[in-house]
Amino acid sequence: MDYYALPIADLIEQFSKLPGIGKKTAQRLALYVLEMDPLEVEKLANSIINAKEKIHYCKQCFNLTDDEFCNVCKNPNRDESTICVVEGPRDVVAMEKIREYKGLYHVLHGVISPIKDIGPDEIRIKELLDRVYNKQVKEIILALNPTVEGEATSLYIAKLLKPLGIKTTRIAHGIPVGGDLEYFDEVTLSKAMENRREL
Amino acid sequence: MDYYALPIADLIEQFSKLPGIGKKTAQRLALYVLEMDPLEVEKLANSIINAKEKIHYCKQCFNLTDDEFCNVCKNPNRDESTICVVEGPRDVVAMEKIREYKGLYHVLHGVISPIKDIGPDEIRIKELLDRVYNKQVKEIILALNPTVEGEATSLYIAKLLKPLGIKTTRIAHGIPVGGDLEYFDEVTLSKAMENRREL
Repeated sequence: MDYYALPIADLIEQFSKLPGIGKKTAQRLALYVLEMDPLEVEKLANSIINAKEKIHYCKQCFNLTDDEFCNVCKNPNRDESTICVVEGPRDVVAMEKIREYKGLYHVLHGVISPIKDIGPDEIRIKELLDRVYNKQVKEIILALNPTVEGEATSLYIAKLLKPLGIKTTRIAHGIPVGGDLEYFDEVTLSKAMENRREL
Repeated sequence: MDYYALPIADLIEQFSKLPGIGKKTAQRLALYVLEMDPLEVEKLANSIINAKEKIHYCKQCFNLTDDEFCNVCKNPNRDESTICVVEGPRDVVAMEKIREYKGLYHVLHGVISPIKDIGPDEIRIKELLDRVYNKQVKEIILALNPTVEGEATSLYIAKLLKPLGIKTTRIAHGIPVGGDLEYFDEVTLSKAMENRREL
């Protein structure tokens, strides 16, 4: 790094702290920034500061928003009786893209993981229960990732919801459309067999 | 993009303008920034602004520096009679890493490319000739990339230097160390054959 003048070395270091950005990519990005139009550079820096300052969690579902409530929670056409529970804000975007789901969301911001020392109180499970207690919720759809932690978190939440008599479902596991049978692990295949349907 | 609140969508857009950063990566980076420590976010934004403000070209060799002259040009131990001509600042770093070259550099900031409408006057060739005229230069080492444009630029510069009676050399082309013969194109192989040495 001492081959670069200090401000460049510093910028390379900052870029390489971002996920998936190695030393080489950070170097390429830093040198690119130095060749950019000064106005564009200012825009980039301002966008970073601005997003960090203005974006926070939706008061109801903990999705990201620059308002009190997120766009989904603010929309009066959404069905308030259904809540889809996801791990992170990106999952909300993935679900919204299919343009079929009309209910609300609840973003946990993580999953229970004893290895990473994340217990049920570290993610937004309590807030989900508060929503269930206070509003007319008919169905909770668990759409966590099919990892060991995701599964465990799903089961944990399902157990908490059971005594409340609320319908709790989980999105189907199976072979993705366009997927090739031979490339999936046994667990996926056995889930796909288990959930088979009559044609 | 309308799934995200405006400040996030804006940040994603800014990130995706960077080279090699697609929409998905830009989204990942933006959401990561939102989860970062506010102090770290400020550091990142400041590094961008700071590097852009402080870094400019070295007055002599056009390498990047935050001073009047770059670290190489400022170093009294470097051999001023040899100039290695490279395309960009990253090439200087690549050369410096071998810790063998003791001369100075000259950064062209590009190569002649009729397709991209870059003529000899768009890159720092004139400034190279000025250096040659004004200082005691004994050898010019051309270390441009072995592309069509790089080759053409090397030949162009060599032709300009010839009447001045200055030794002009080019770094060797051949098979890189650790490379596998079968993976290189015919031109590289024929250059490697041409430049073979007796053992």
